Amino acid sequence: MAFRIHSAVFIPTIIGLGTDAQIAKWVPLAKDYRIIGTYAQTELGHGTNLRGLETTATFDTSSQDFLLNTPKVSSIKWWPGDLARAANHAVVLAQLYTKGVCHGMHAFIVQIRSLVDHSVLPGIKIGDIGPKMGFEQVDNGYLMMQNVRVPRENMLSRYSRVTSDGSYIKEGSDRINYISMVFTRVKLISRELIPALSKACVIAIRYSVVRRQSELKPGEKEAKILDYQTQQQKLLPQLATIFALYFMSLSLEAFCNQVNLQIKTKRDLSSLLELHALSAGLKALASESCSAGVETCRRACGGHGYSMFSGLPSLYSRVVASCTYEGENTVMLLQTARFLMKCLARLDCGQPLPQSVSYLSEPISSYCSAKEKTDFFKPFLYTEAYKHRAQRLIKDSGDKLQSLLQSGVEQYVAWNITSVQLARTSVAHCHYTVVKNFVEAMEGLKPEPEIQQVIKRLCDLYALTGILANAGDFLCDGYITGKQLDLLTSSQLDLLALIRKDAVSIVDAFDYPDQQLNSAIGNYDGYAYQHLFEWAQKAPSNAKVDPVYEKYLKPLFQSAQSKL
Amino acid sequence: MAFRIHSAVFIPTIIGLGTDAQIAKWVPLAKDYRIIGTYAQTELGHGTNLRGLETTATFDTSSQDFLLNTPKVSSIKWWPGDLARAANHAVVLAQLYTKGVCHGMHAFIVQIRSLVDHSVLPGIKIGDIGPKMGFEQVDNGYLMMQNVRVPRENMLSRYSRVTSDGSYIKEGSDRINYISMVFTRVKLISRELIPALSKACVIAIRYSVVRRQSELKPGEKEAKILDYQTQQQKLLPQLATIFALYFMSLSLEAFCNQVNLQIKTKRDLSSLLELHALSAGLKALASESCSAGVETCRRACGGHGYSMFSGLPSLYSRVVASCTYEGENTVMLLQTARFLMKCLARLDCGQPLPQSVSYLSEPISSYCSAKEKTDFFKPFLYTEAYKHRAQRLIKDSGDKLQSLLQSGVEQYVAWNITSVQLARTSVAHCHYTVVKNFVEAMEGLKPEPEIQQVIKRLCDLYALTGILANAGDFLCDGYITGKQLDLLTSSQLDLLALIRKDAVSIVDAFDYPDQQLNSAIGNYDGYAYQHLFEWAQKAPSNAKVDPVYEKYLKPLFQSAQSKL
Repeated sequence: MAFRIHSAVFIPTIIGLGTDAQIAKWVPLAKDYRIIGTYAQTELGHGTNLRGLETTATFDTSSQDFLLNTPKVSSIKWWPGDLARAANHAVVLAQLYTKGVCHGMHAFIVQIRSLVDHSVLPGIKIGDIGPKMGFEQVDNGYLMMQNVRVPRENMLSRYSRVTSDGSYIKEGSDRINYISMVFTRVKLISRELIPALSKACVIAIRYSVVRRQSELKPGEKEAKILDYQTQQQKLLPQLATIFALYFMSLSLEAFCNQVNLQIKTKRDLSSLLELHALSAGLKALASESCSAGVETCRRACGGHGYSMFSGLPSLYSRVVASCTYEGENTVMLLQTARFLMKCLARLDCGQPLPQSVSYLSEPISSYCSAKEKTDFFKPFLYTEAYKHRAQRLIKDSGDKLQSLLQSGVEQYVAWNITSVQLARTSVAHCHYTVVKNFVEAMEGLKPEPEIQQVIKRLCDLYALTGILANAGDFLCDGYITGKQLDLLTSSQLDLLALIRKDAVSIVDAFDYPDQQLNSAIGNYDGYAYQHLFEWAQKAPSNAKVDPVYEKYLKPLFQSAQSKL
Repeated sequence: MAFRIHSAVFIPTIIGLGTDAQIAKWVPLAKDYRIIGTYAQTELGHGTNLRGLETTATFDTSSQDFLLNTPKVSSIKWWPGDLARAANHAVVLAQLYTKGVCHGMHAFIVQIRSLVDHSVLPGIKIGDIGPKMGFEQVDNGYLMMQNVRVPRENMLSRYSRVTSDGSYIKEGSDRINYISMVFTRVKLISRELIPALSKACVIAIRYSVVRRQSELKPGEKEAKILDYQTQQQKLLPQLATIFALYFMSLSLEAFCNQVNLQIKTKRDLSSLLELHALSAGLKALASESCSAGVETCRRACGGHGYSMFSGLPSLYSRVVASCTYEGENTVMLLQTARFLMKCLARLDCGQPLPQSVSYLSEPISSYCSAKEKTDFFKPFLYTEAYKHRAQRLIKDSGDKLQSLLQSGVEQYVAWNITSVQLARTSVAHCHYTVVKNFVEAMEGLKPEPEIQQVIKRLCDLYALTGILANAGDFLCDGYITGKQLDLLTSSQLDLLALIRKDAVSIVDAFDYPDQQLNSAIGNYDGYAYQHLFEWAQKAPSNAKVDPVYEKYLKPLFQSAQSKL
C-alpha cells in the first residue's frame, strides 16, 4: 500500500512531463526504490480548479534555483498519498514565476526528506491530514514549503523550460497529457466502481435468499426476503446496473484506446475533447449509481448491513469517495454539459457532430408508441424514449442559455443560473448512452440465445427502472402518457418477478445453512454471521454455493469478454 | 454510555409489564445500580417480525422454573445494548410454553452474570457482536442460553401469568404498551434526526461561504461555493427540510401526548392505531430524508467532507442507522399502508375517518390552477397538489388490491405484488401531511411578519423541491402539466437565489479566516481544518460567527416553540 502513488503517479508523471535526460536520471532511481515519490497537486483550498493553485515556484537567476513556497494556509498541499510517512521526493505542482511573470502551473521534482535518516528537510513541514471516512490505511499527507530551493533542472521540461537567464520557452502542447487523466477516470469505472457494486450485490442477494422474515403466506414458514417485491425492487435493479456499466466500460475503454492510438501514431488530438466529455459524464453517472446501489444493498440487509462483517459498510465508504475524487461529480457533469452546448452550436452551424452526440441531428420522435405493457420490452422503444429525453433537455438548456444572453445577461451569470438544468442534461445524455450501448451489447449476444435472454431482461429492467426514477422527464412534454407509465410500471414489476423466477431453481436449492452452523454451536464464538458473510463473499468458484454468479455473472462476463 | 439501555429500556419494561410486586422487587435494585439490566429481544435471524422469535421459555411444573433456551443459531439474542460488557441481568423475550402449548412472546427477567465477580453464569454464553458502521463505542452483545432456569416469579406478569400447575391466564390487554414503542419513534425524529440534519446543514453551509472555488466572473476572485446554483440546490432544500420536520415533530408529539392522556385517563385506545400508522410512516420519511440530507451535505463539502474532522462522516453513519432501527423503513411504510387501506374500506362503507386521513373524503381536485410562476408561491396551491397525489395513490392502490382479489389472487399474494406501490403511497400520504402541517405552522407566525417571510420561503422551497423530485406522480394524470412544471422549476430556482440573497448581508461579512489561520502558520500543526471545522461546529452563541443560525434557526425555533 505504501508505494501506490510512487508507481502509479510519480513515475508516470516524470515519464510524461520530463525530458529524455530527466527521465534517464530519475526513473531508474525511482524504479529501484532508491527514491520514493509522491505527487503533490491538490491544496487545502484548491481542488478541481487547477488554475487556482497558490503554491509558487519563483526562478532566482543568481542562484539558478527555483524557490518553492506555500504562502497561505489554503495553499498547503493536502491529500497526497504516501506523503505523510513514505515519500522522500515529490512532484510538486506550482505556479511558475520568472522575471516577475506568472506562467501558470508547472511540475517540479522536490526532495522532501533525507535519504540518510528520512528526516524532513529544512524549510519543509509534513504531516498526516488526519482520520478520514474509510481509507484508514492510506497515508494521506500535507506539505508546507518555505523558500525550498531546487535546481533549474528539476522543473519537468518536456513541454516548456526556463533558460539560465530566466526566459520562459514553451515547446509544443501538453494537452496530450490529458489522456492520462481520462484513462484514470475510465479505469476507475471498470476497476473500482463495477467491482464494488458487484460485490455488494452478490452479498445482498445471497443474504436475501438465506434470511427469512415474517410469514408471506399465513401459516407457512417465514419467507425468504428475496421473495418480497419490495426487496426485489431494491436489489434486482442493482444487478442490472452492473451489466449496464460493465458493457459501457468496455465501449469506453475501446474508445480510449482508439484515441490514444490516434494521438500516438498521428499526433491527432481531435477526439480528445469528446472522449474527455464522455468519460467525465460517465464517471459521474457510474460513481453516483454505484454508490447509491451499494448503499441500497447495504440497507437491504437490515441490521446486519451495519455489521462490518458484512463487508458492506467499507464497500460503501470506499466507493462513495469516487463521487469526489478524479473530478467532483457536479464539476464533471458541467464539463460534459459545456461540450454538449458546443455541439449544439456546431449543429446550428450545420457542422458535423462527434459520434457520441450525433443523435442530436437525428429527428426527434414526439411520442412513445407503446400500446400494451409488453411493448416496453422492446429495446427500440425505450432507447427512443431516452434519446428523446436527452435531445429535448440539451435543446432546452441551449435555448435557455441563448435567451438569457439575448436578454443581456452576462455569459457567466447565464451559465450559473442554468447550471442545475445543465447538470441534469448531462445525466440524461449519459443515461441514453448507457442504455443504447447496453442494447447493442445485448443484441451482439444473439448466437447465445440463453445468455441473451437473461441479459435482455436485465437490460429491460435497467431501462425501465431509469424511466420510472425520472418519470417527470418523460411525461412533462407528453412523450410518455400517464397511461403508458402505468403499463411501464407494471412491466417493470413483472420483470422483477421474472428475474427472481429465473434464478429460483438454483437459488432455492440453497438455504440458510442452519445445519452447518448449528453443528458448530457447541463451540460457537459469536461469529456465526462473520462466517456466513465470509462465505457469501468468497470468490465464486462453485455453482452450488454461487447460483447468482453462476447463472448470471459468470457466463455473461465470459461471453461478453469474448464477444466485444 | 454503558447504562443507556438499563435506564431507558430495562427499568421501563419492568414498570410497564411487571406486577406491583415485581416492580417493588426489581426497580429499586435497578435504580440503585445494584443490578444492571439489558433488554434482549432481537435475534440473529429475527428482527421486525416479533412473532418469529425462536427463543423459548418452557415451564417445568416439578421445579416451578422456566427453562430458557436459544435452540438455533438464528435464535441467538443479537444486538442488545450494554450486554457484552456491562449487564448482569436481562429482560429476555421468549416464546412461552406451558403444558406443551405455545402462548406467544413473553418477558422474563434472567440473571446472566454473577453479582460477585461478574462472571457469566452456567448455561449462558455472552459476547460482542463485532465492529459496526459507526457506533464503535456502543456495547452490543449476543446471548445464548442452554437450559437456563429462572423461577416462576421472573415472568413479568401484569397482563398474563402462569399458575403453579402450569395453567396460562391472560389478564387484560397489553396493547397499551404499544404507546411506548410509538413514543420512542416520535422522540427519535426530534432528538436524533432533526439535530443530525441541522448540524450537517450548518457545517456545510458555513463551509460553503468560506470555501472558494474557480472563477465565476472571469478575472475576479474565486467565488464562494455557495454562490454556485448547483451548491444552493444541494444545500438549501436541506435547510427547508429541517423546518418541515421540526414543525411536524411538534404536531406529532402533541398528538402523542393527547393519545397518551386518553389512554391514561379513559383507557381509550381508539386513536392508538392512527398514531401508530402516522408515526411509522413519518419515522420512515424523516429518517430517509435526514440520512439523504446529511450525506448530501457531506458530499457538498468535497474532499473535506471525507475528513473525520468535518464531523460529517460520523453524523451520516449515526443517522442512517435510524432507517433500520425502531422499525425498518420499508416495513414501517407498509404498516402505514395497511392503515390507509383500512381507512379506504371505512370510507367505502360511509364510516367516519380518523383526522389524519380525513382528507380522503374531501373532493379530489382534478387539475392545478397555476398560470404563472408566482402562483407556485401560494401554499394552498401546492398543498392541494400534494393532497391530490396522496388521494390518487391511495385510491389506485386500493383499486389494484381489489381487482387482484376479485380476479382470484390470494390476499397475501395481492398484498405482496402491490407492496412497491403501497410503500410509495405511504410516502405520498406522509409527504402531504408534512407539507400541510408546515403551511399551518407558517401561517401561525403571522404576528411576526419578518419571521414568517423567511419561513414562508423555506416552506415553498420544501414543497416545490418535493414536487420536482417526484414530478412523475404529479404529471402522470395531468394534474400538473408540463408547462406548469417548467414554471414550477423556475420558481424553485428563484427561491434558491432569494434565500441565498436573504442571508447575503450577514453571511458575506463573514469570510475565510485567512488572517487568523495564517497568523498561526508558524506553529501550524496540520490541523488548520480541524480548527476551522471545530469553529464551524461550535454551539451557536454569537451572531457574527453564526449568521445562518442567527438569521433562520434561532428566531424561528424560538418563535415556533412559543407559538405551537
